[in-house]
Amino acid sequence: MDEIFARRRNRLRELMLEKGFDAVLISYAANRFYLSGFELHDVQFNETSGYLAVGADGRDILLTDPRYLEAAAKCLPRENIVIYKGAQHEAMSKTLKGLGRRIGLEMDALSMNCVRTLAASCPELSFESCDGMTEGLRQMKDSREIAALEKSFVLNHNMLTWLEGELVPGLSEKEVSWKIERYFRENGASELAFESIVAIDENAAMPHALASDKTITENCLVLVDVGCRVDGYCSDQTRTFWVGGQKDSRFEETLALVREAQSAAIACMHPGVAFADVYAQARNVFEKAGCAEAFTHGLGHGVGLETHEKPSLSPRSQGKLQAGMVVTVEPGLYYPQWGGCRWENTVLVVEDGVRIL
Amino acid sequence: MDEIFARRRNRLRELMLEKGFDAVLISYAANRFYLSGFELHDVQFNETSGYLAVGADGRDILLTDPRYLEAAAKCLPRENIVIYKGAQHEAMSKTLKGLGRRIGLEMDALSMNCVRTLAASCPELSFESCDGMTEGLRQMKDSREIAALEKSFVLNHNMLTWLEGELVPGLSEKEVSWKIERYFRENGASELAFESIVAIDENAAMPHALASDKTITENCLVLVDVGCRVDGYCSDQTRTFWVGGQKDSRFEETLALVREAQSAAIACMHPGVAFADVYAQARNVFEKAGCAEAFTHGLGHGVGLETHEKPSLSPRSQGKLQAGMVVTVEPGLYYPQWGGCRWENTVLVVEDGVRIL
Repeated sequence: MDEIFARRRNRLRELMLEKGFDAVLISYAANRFYLSGFELHDVQFNETSGYLAVGADGRDILLTDPRYLEAAAKCLPRENIVIYKGAQHEAMSKTLKGLGRRIGLEMDALSMNCVRTLAASCPELSFESCDGMTEGLRQMKDSREIAALEKSFVLNHNMLTWLEGELVPGLSEKEVSWKIERYFRENGASELAFESIVAIDENAAMPHALASDKTITENCLVLVDVGCRVDGYCSDQTRTFWVGGQKDSRFEETLALVREAQSAAIACMHPGVAFADVYAQARNVFEKAGCAEAFTHGLGHGVGLETHEKPSLSPRSQGKLQAGMVVTVEPGLYYPQWGGCRWENTVLVVEDGVRIL
Repeated sequence: MDEIFARRRNRLRELMLEKGFDAVLISYAANRFYLSGFELHDVQFNETSGYLAVGADGRDILLTDPRYLEAAAKCLPRENIVIYKGAQHEAMSKTLKGLGRRIGLEMDALSMNCVRTLAASCPELSFESCDGMTEGLRQMKDSREIAALEKSFVLNHNMLTWLEGELVPGLSEKEVSWKIERYFRENGASELAFESIVAIDENAAMPHALASDKTITENCLVLVDVGCRVDGYCSDQTRTFWVGGQKDSRFEETLALVREAQSAAIACMHPGVAFADVYAQARNVFEKAGCAEAFTHGLGHGVGLETHEKPSLSPRSQGKLQAGMVVTVEPGLYYPQWGGCRWENTVLVVEDGVRIL
């Protein structure tokens, strides 16, 4: 049993008391892992590895199927584990009834049918949304999480440094993508954080291009947006490289603007600055240069157990930076037919500014 | 545009007419891909790549965000694509209102909040469950799917043949697992179908053990349950190998029984045989040998775009084999402390029996 998970559940309990919940049922895999250490992934999109019930009175119960008994027993004492075999909803109903009357459910994650079945089998309970409660806690990373993120980003930096020397004419985007994955996996990553983006020339005009059979030529740009997972935590970085001796001046100018926008955003970041203002700093650089319409996405997003977490650094985002947040800063400029440049670092917000991971 | 997806949507439309739906909204990723060719995977568990609306009147509409416009345009004409930017639910409501009044939703897949939001913004529509409709169609594989499955299983067989010579003392389960993944990826697979199970000796007593740091010794059993994805389709096979010259007699006897149970099950399989009867054939072998209580899971499951699909070959499963179904046949015997043996092939049900993939 790892005390850090118990401490996280206690912080959730404080929020539950504020909102008057007797218990919450955690079904979203990343939240379940954050609060218990049990299974970061579900088996398939339609096949859960289990549920965590957190009671306001201090009881925690992990519900899972027989395959996961051993894994569950590493997270909670055996008497706090309910094994369902076929009868999943009955086990959930019985557990929740034992924990109180006002129950929080993750209505963004739980299926309509699951909520309906629970409501029908527990007419005496009142089910309400507890969406965002655990995600809110997850925004501020603790020291254990920061240590894991640091490892993940060190590996990501090392890979990108190595990769630059590997990009030679003839290699396809898919081949580069597999080189990246092999490097990550053979140097400590458990998996990719997300499918790598490797985009040559005009393919880089699509912010989320996946690797194709297009090959590197002498003198081309290669955008690489990659992440790995180490000790459960994701890294996420983008570089736009030039391959060949004759660097295109448009490439150099575009990349210089993108990096200037990134620097401007990072320079303004410290606790208390509004998310939308960080975005505005980057956009302002592009507006002055007359190319803001080519900056087609948000500036960044939280990173942690998932690649995309709260908060979002976008013009519509509500809220302010707080110490402990980990967010990407990834401005980009995209020009159909020509290509695109993006440059992404991830920063940890600290008391007096940020630290680049 | 690929005609096969249009044909599949027309088969869904026939079912919709029977049930009186004006339209169905497909949100489950594998169903969406099956019916349109659009994105087999969602971005994250809480981040969809898009929705497919299928109208009874023949209109099909793909709803997605700007990142996926190009991918969507390969699946449907531009005028059938709705790009939402932030305003996802508004786009869904407007599209569904344009398609009719009785709308089918995948209530097993759609979140409670999503259904609630749709219902609130479309009071004039009636939303009902269309769960299982597409999954029902997916049970019977067409010739294109069978060709992809064959490629995936050929690679899986080749890998297992190669792997047997690679299992030597000193290698850890994790190292074997990475060898398997590299082989698959470097020989045509886009990814693993599921996280490989590599389990040595007593670890094999857990049917779903994941790879650990435990190493192969001289004279041990190694259970390997692996799948890869080729052209979108999953393979799934298990072998239990012996490493070393002195084969344990308990291993030999256990494996012989498991393979006998598999043969008995496969021998009885042809269109019209009840799923539960296939299971009973395998179990019967274990009952005669007095070890049925060590057979702790179902006999098999469908395989296709997902590793776990309908139908299930279990004692409680309703229904009968039909030509075109693809199912695993994977009996196993598990003994805590000692280990376990499982042997798994996947078969295609044909007119006069089955063909082993």
